[in-house]
Amino acid sequence: MLKIGIIGVGTVGTSVCQILEDNKDIITARAGVELVPVAGVVNNLSKKRDVSIKITDNPDDILNDDSIDIVVELMGGVEGAYNVVKKALQKGKAVVTANKALLAYHRYELQDIAGDTPFEFEAAVAGGIPIISALREGLGANHIESIKGIINGTCNYMLDKMINEGVDYDTILKEAQDLGYAEADPSFDVGGFDAAHKLLIMASIAYGIDAKPEDILIEGIENVSPEDISFAKEFGYALKLLGIAKTRGDKVELRVHAVLIPTSEMLAKVDGVMNAVSVVGDKVGETLYYGPGAGGDATASAVIANIIDIARKGKGKGSPMLGFKTSLESGLHLADKGDIETKYYLRLHVEDKPGVLSKVTTILGNRNISIKNMVQNSVDETSANLLLSTHTCSEKDIKEALEIFETENLVLSKPAMIRIEE
Amino acid sequence: MLKIGIIGVGTVGTSVCQILEDNKDIITARAGVELVPVAGVVNNLSKKRDVSIKITDNPDDILNDDSIDIVVELMGGVEGAYNVVKKALQKGKAVVTANKALLAYHRYELQDIAGDTPFEFEAAVAGGIPIISALREGLGANHIESIKGIINGTCNYMLDKMINEGVDYDTILKEAQDLGYAEADPSFDVGGFDAAHKLLIMASIAYGIDAKPEDILIEGIENVSPEDISFAKEFGYALKLLGIAKTRGDKVELRVHAVLIPTSEMLAKVDGVMNAVSVVGDKVGETLYYGPGAGGDATASAVIANIIDIARKGKGKGSPMLGFKTSLESGLHLADKGDIETKYYLRLHVEDKPGVLSKVTTILGNRNISIKNMVQNSVDETSANLLLSTHTCSEKDIKEALEIFETENLVLSKPAMIRIEE
Repeated sequence: MLKIGIIGVGTVGTSVCQILEDNKDIITARAGVELVPVAGVVNNLSKKRDVSIKITDNPDDILNDDSIDIVVELMGGVEGAYNVVKKALQKGKAVVTANKALLAYHRYELQDIAGDTPFEFEAAVAGGIPIISALREGLGANHIESIKGIINGTCNYMLDKMINEGVDYDTILKEAQDLGYAEADPSFDVGGFDAAHKLLIMASIAYGIDAKPEDILIEGIENVSPEDISFAKEFGYALKLLGIAKTRGDKVELRVHAVLIPTSEMLAKVDGVMNAVSVVGDKVGETLYYGPGAGGDATASAVIANIIDIARKGKGKGSPMLGFKTSLESGLHLADKGDIETKYYLRLHVEDKPGVLSKVTTILGNRNISIKNMVQNSVDETSANLLLSTHTCSEKDIKEALEIFETENLVLSKPAMIRIEE
Repeated sequence: MLKIGIIGVGTVGTSVCQILEDNKDIITARAGVELVPVAGVVNNLSKKRDVSIKITDNPDDILNDDSIDIVVELMGGVEGAYNVVKKALQKGKAVVTANKALLAYHRYELQDIAGDTPFEFEAAVAGGIPIISALREGLGANHIESIKGIINGTCNYMLDKMINEGVDYDTILKEAQDLGYAEADPSFDVGGFDAAHKLLIMASIAYGIDAKPEDILIEGIENVSPEDISFAKEFGYALKLLGIAKTRGDKVELRVHAVLIPTSEMLAKVDGVMNAVSVVGDKVGETLYYGPGAGGDATASAVIANIIDIARKGKGKGSPMLGFKTSLESGLHLADKGDIETKYYLRLHVEDKPGVLSKVTTILGNRNISIKNMVQNSVDETSANLLLSTHTCSEKDIKEALEIFETENLVLSKPAMIRIEE
């Protein structure tokens, strides 16, 4: 029997207890040993929980209990969780966490502390989808060329409704909140930070890149407008918030932003709150992993998969936490935000008079930005929206061009820009 | 250093050698040890191979070489491969195979022989997609409710062309052969046997079911007609060859056949030669795994993932070969072919005269087969095609009804039937 202590008995923690009970037959057969949750830690002892384990409000009751083999950390947050996990590992307890923020900031310290003690985190990225295992084990023969993930279900749900049903941003945000998809303060989701945490974890496994959220480009979906959505439809794109990691030479681009992708891609077909991650390996080509990215039972499914693995393997015999047994001398470096290269869609609200278009194209041309498509839509009698897409160019050049459009008063309102991945 | 012997140095074996060389940096960092192919076995020594390992035509040169740690079996076939793998395991060598036919017939004997010796087979199902790992590890917390897989790329390519481009069966089969997708004798692919082998392997991991190909329902795509394709389009279905495993009570249905699925499902969106497997777990819900199901590099990617895993874990510390450490007392049994329950689409070529329709509906009604949709299309002045879809009913009842249509001369030609999964 392996005894499990759960730190944070909320939705996911309760699901972990219930599934270990509901599916005890098959889980025991797979693990080869009974997996028993014995204790849980909560903040508020007076709140009723639907679990039969011993409940305390002091993590040390679990951390100092030598009979507990595996600590499941579901408390959330960064520094508090770090201290709990660190102590558990130092006590030699295996740790399973679903805490993406913790890993976005402390995964390399924790890997060092863990050493041969199992430390697993499948549930931290894309909920019930076994994407960590796919990257760390299944695709191990490959140099990873790119990872593109729909890894925030709230944003995918909102964009889906905006593009397919014409609902505006504020209305759909309220609906997502009412449905429980988005928090009362939704900025963590719609601002792209949740996706960034997950992207950083995947990038460590693929590339050994030790970056933190503040090192990478993170944009959300707050500025997506109805015009952008019309453009996407008119030119045959889907609009998704993606976490993207891709290599170019010895640089790794890491970025989270809304992006236009061809509707023929599998990622474009992922609707509603579902998550999916497309991974391109240099040998295998594209593989894609799809499923529920959140929810108590789906997340608990991943947590328990990790517990079963720990039971099967024992200490020091699994994959290294972040995928590499020896240090990776691949010479890969994080690309500067300005060095990102992709295609862009621009929307410029300009005066409808001769000479404007020529100024716009000159400013772009001077920065080696070449135009692929252009459409001009009248806004009123004196102004128009210029919608244009570019061939591949650098982020720095695009940002510079957009700034010049503003400083030279070529645009009547702030220009909009969305990146295109194809 | 771990030394690897490759038995069968064809397309996949050559890719294994090349990838171990090309990606040596990252593979060594992930495995924690250098993985070196040292010897290969071929049938025909005079044929030139693009590998630098020692080549022999005698498997014993590898099996009796105590310095070789891991045997990769890529020779194909059943009994010859069984003897080679058995001997390798008995010598204590870890085995990696891509041989689905071998496992379709001998997986349980081989699991017994392997004991604690690692025996991995990720490449045997869906090529480069890590579906074995997903089923065995990633979804371990779940009772698996269903597995539905597009696991034969040749059939998917052919159906795709037939449905989207109106190409007829014989033309597209010839094209698939010219492209190298289908063999000169294509019956293994188009007859559904290849998919059945893969389905049986997945079913063992999900359910512990020890069935052989001859125990289950296997139909191919040879009898799909243009009318069936029109029906699919008219009623909003995609047409796929699926390997299906699903539970109903204590029964497990295992079957391979062409099937109509709603176009809104992710599986319906898998085009061309790509593979995908949708798995529904009782806790996680649906997850789906997509990627290349064949090809030298994609298959070798999965073979090498297994080799890296073996290097990381060592003996006796991985997952049990078929997923269960202790015997599974789940009480699941293979459903009889006649006990399969699903929905059906029928095409009946009947005389266009009063009374025929009433006889058809009476025969169906007497067997509790209720009709969901019906369309009648004129064939000529005196006959029509009745296209109808049913609600859920049993295979036995449908087959009996079809037989009666023929014996009572209600139909002018053999009725067509395709199952519907929705």
